[in-house]
Amino acid sequence: MVLEVALFDVRPGAEQAFAQAYAQARPLLAQSEGCRSVRMTQGVETPTRFVLLVEWDSLDAHELFRASPRFGEWRALVAPHFATPPLVEHYQDL
Amino acid sequence: MVLEVALFDVRPGAEQAFAQAYAQARPLLAQSEGCRSVRMTQGVETPTRFVLLVEWDSLDAHELFRASPRFGEWRALVAPHFATPPLVEHYQDL
Repeated sequence: MVLEVALFDVRPGAEQAFAQAYAQARPLLAQSEGCRSVRMTQGVETPTRFVLLVEWDSLDAHELFRASPRFGEWRALVAPHFATPPLVEHYQDL
Repeated sequence: MVLEVALFDVRPGAEQAFAQAYAQARPLLAQSEGCRSVRMTQGVETPTRFVLLVEWDSLDAHELFRASPRFGEWRALVAPHFATPPLVEHYQDL
């Protein structure tokens, strides 16, 4: 299992629109093969900052999603609200 | 409920020592009042980077831990391995 930690900074004022786009886009991610769980959170100190936590069976499972047509649909929904390119890294439990 | 997301960058070569210090320090955090769950993860792309996820009952619960003597013990164990000051923010589920 690998944990994807993705940091999204959205444009000020776009928080609600991003949340709505995410609600629409979520199934594209959550229903992907090898996706175990999806959790989107919004910053308390920095409300324009969102952290997405996704548990994947493996790095390959995430790569297969990224190479799928569904990833393009996901990005088309959420990316218009980004202020900067997302920061995405993978982690493993200690 | 609030999710603490803490980013720790440790000195290169200190990964194992940090993991051992964390194993010793973990109960100080996990047994604090209002602490619901604790999860420490290590970066795949950046093994010197660790992300700690802590679910607290509230921001106040985290502040009470930070104001307690246990926080000093926690810091004394883990902080010697830090390369930079930790980045700590709080998030709420969308």
